[in-house]
Amino acid sequence: MAEETKITLTEKEIPTRWYNIQADLPQPLPPVLHPGTKQPVGPQDLAPIFPMALIGQEVSRERYIEIPEEVREVYKLWRPTPMYRARRLEKALGTPARIYYKYEGTSPAGSHKPNTAVAQAYFNKQEGVKRLTTETGAGQWGSALAFACRSFGMECKVYMVKVSYQQKPYRRVMMETWGAKVVPSPSKETQAGQRILAGDADSPGSLGIAISEAVEDAATHPDTKYALGSVLNHVLMHQTVIGEEALLQMEKAGAYPDMVIGCVGGGSSFAGISLPFIRERLQKGRKTRFIAVEPEACPSITRGKYIYDFGDTGEMTPLVKMYTLGHTFVPPRIHAGGLRYHGMSPIISALCEQGVIEARAVHQTAIFEAALLFARAEGIISAPEPAHAIKVAIDEALKCKESGEAKTILFNLCGHGHFDMSSYDDYLAGRLQDYAYPQAEIEKALKLVPQV
Amino acid sequence: MAEETKITLTEKEIPTRWYNIQADLPQPLPPVLHPGTKQPVGPQDLAPIFPMALIGQEVSRERYIEIPEEVREVYKLWRPTPMYRARRLEKALGTPARIYYKYEGTSPAGSHKPNTAVAQAYFNKQEGVKRLTTETGAGQWGSALAFACRSFGMECKVYMVKVSYQQKPYRRVMMETWGAKVVPSPSKETQAGQRILAGDADSPGSLGIAISEAVEDAATHPDTKYALGSVLNHVLMHQTVIGEEALLQMEKAGAYPDMVIGCVGGGSSFAGISLPFIRERLQKGRKTRFIAVEPEACPSITRGKYIYDFGDTGEMTPLVKMYTLGHTFVPPRIHAGGLRYHGMSPIISALCEQGVIEARAVHQTAIFEAALLFARAEGIISAPEPAHAIKVAIDEALKCKESGEAKTILFNLCGHGHFDMSSYDDYLAGRLQDYAYPQAEIEKALKLVPQV
Repeated sequence: MAEETKITLTEKEIPTRWYNIQADLPQPLPPVLHPGTKQPVGPQDLAPIFPMALIGQEVSRERYIEIPEEVREVYKLWRPTPMYRARRLEKALGTPARIYYKYEGTSPAGSHKPNTAVAQAYFNKQEGVKRLTTETGAGQWGSALAFACRSFGMECKVYMVKVSYQQKPYRRVMMETWGAKVVPSPSKETQAGQRILAGDADSPGSLGIAISEAVEDAATHPDTKYALGSVLNHVLMHQTVIGEEALLQMEKAGAYPDMVIGCVGGGSSFAGISLPFIRERLQKGRKTRFIAVEPEACPSITRGKYIYDFGDTGEMTPLVKMYTLGHTFVPPRIHAGGLRYHGMSPIISALCEQGVIEARAVHQTAIFEAALLFARAEGIISAPEPAHAIKVAIDEALKCKESGEAKTILFNLCGHGHFDMSSYDDYLAGRLQDYAYPQAEIEKALKLVPQV
Repeated sequence: MAEETKITLTEKEIPTRWYNIQADLPQPLPPVLHPGTKQPVGPQDLAPIFPMALIGQEVSRERYIEIPEEVREVYKLWRPTPMYRARRLEKALGTPARIYYKYEGTSPAGSHKPNTAVAQAYFNKQEGVKRLTTETGAGQWGSALAFACRSFGMECKVYMVKVSYQQKPYRRVMMETWGAKVVPSPSKETQAGQRILAGDADSPGSLGIAISEAVEDAATHPDTKYALGSVLNHVLMHQTVIGEEALLQMEKAGAYPDMVIGCVGGGSSFAGISLPFIRERLQKGRKTRFIAVEPEACPSITRGKYIYDFGDTGEMTPLVKMYTLGHTFVPPRIHAGGLRYHGMSPIISALCEQGVIEARAVHQTAIFEAALLFARAEGIISAPEPAHAIKVAIDEALKCKESGEAKTILFNLCGHGHFDMSSYDDYLAGRLQDYAYPQAEIEKALKLVPQV
């Protein structure tokens, strides 16, 4: 029987539990520190902005955490997502490599983000929270949370990075269609936003700034908590449904990946597809390579440092040990807005440090070139963020062509590009610019990181 | 076992043949007439613009026509498409009705249009055609053909209705991403376009005008043919994969529709889902109602006449018997650009005339109100065109609430609204306008239809 092009699963095969890699890490994660005392934070420190269930998940060492039935019910609107064998791309490249991609663009919001948004909304709702605040870059996370809040009848307030708010007005309308309130960040609605605007009225914003605003809003309003779309342990854990499904789909395809590739901003897309395969490597010694791809314009792993830093620009969050470019680093206005984050999730950072994950940085003209080749072969128009994964998947497939090896490559196509067509327009018209950082500029931001 | 929310099929269940309702029509379709002689046209009359295989399908009385393996291979990129039980919508409405929708928004172009685009590109390619021309309204058809041409390595030229070209620039970029050339219609590139511009330099364009341009381009260039996205018999036939899958999915759900609902512009979306169920009614006497929903702003069935008319504004096409508002009728600039067509497919028209299909017209504020309710319940943001079907599905479900009947409703959600967010913005901001036509204006256009 010929192998299928689109490897699908049934509703019954939606995972029933999330995988928590904290149970299997070679070394436990360094503690998260209070920004004032620099002592490890306890649950009470986080309680003003997160519900206890998520605080519990954040530090849990349980290997598996059950997915509530109410969350699985919402997942059914788009999960399980398809995995594809990229036959047309393989043919276009003339490679002996077998390329697979997991496609998360079929969710209502068009990306993988609802996997955790729905879970977070649910656990907040369970504890009586009526309103969630958040930040959003490209708008993918904000629209996911808007959809999730609507699913559970909650209010949603989104601080959207100003450059994306301007470049992607339709993401704002999408959030509003689901009933969310959206403001460009930095805004005048928070003290954190006011401080930034006082220094630079024309600030393009950044994820770090928007996080400060959303956290402040949650901490200062009743019945309101904050939801983060990436970086944190529980967020990455919720995304493991992607990798668990992919494992099953790989088995159905009679294959196993020699490498797993994903883009990294905060780390949730890459973690989602790779953590279950990393479990297989740690537990069973399977020899898979894991490649995290970041933009050259925001190269936290490849050019940052593994140190304690703030998660936000406004210095409101705890200090976490991670790869960072410094919390004051404001990346240029690249089209992959979802990857414009100064830091990296502690889990991905630790796995990089421990040699399990390797990192690579690529320029934006190269990722759009790859995305165009992909769209013309496979049909699907990728968002700029997963185009980073496409670029490296193609590079690796071309290496196979040179060496004659038929390696199996799996990457996470974590969202479609229907809201990013202006980026493609810029690429097709030759208007895209690449950003190469002088090391001195990165060093400058790193000097502002607090000593621990 | 609980019924599934998302009823999926495997790749092996993609239909292997299209259903040709011409084999089962109670009366055969009236002949298509030559615009000059007013005598029935023969294959040679159509040969300048269509390949012989499609001309053959257009008049075939074979009940089933096999889907070539190469076409099914491309279908596998997104087919089979999911069918959903709209549990959350039912709950929001408090209706005893069971609502199902078939979702075609998962195709690369985001609508049902690639079902025929891929078939048409394939049959043209088989006969040595190197370049296809077409018109597009909202951009859904143009992007589908751009994708299809790219799949078979052909060139594609799209005449895009100017009002949509302006309102939906990102659909243009999507077509260009797949390598198509796109111009706003009326354009200066054809004599048909030049004539319109001479009369009204600010013409918003219409599907009728764009068709004239694309047909002229095909007739006057070597190795070039024309592809139409709706109306014609072979186009509707290619779309029957939707209904064939839905039949199978209904069977898996243990249900059968009391009514099937779809939007109509040219008729292909509605035909796609309904023709296989109409076969069941004609052959087996199953008592399903079929409701075609059109915009009040372009009410060809509900307020037009069933007479011979041109398919285009420029009087270049043959005369076909259909419901029409007159080929000179230019509908107002509603957001459902794909439904701005003066006529209706001969098959749908005949089935309306024969009492198999009923028609209903709705205003655009009402369809966006329905689409918003749907998005907030089911997550998916609909295109304005299928929002017409959502509106009537909700109306019928509310009638069930009143009568207490648990009817089964199936509608075709034939595309997502990711490229239509400006329409939602207009709706949310209260900027939408409804158009109610004075009957005199319709009569005026109908007087310009040629006598046969």
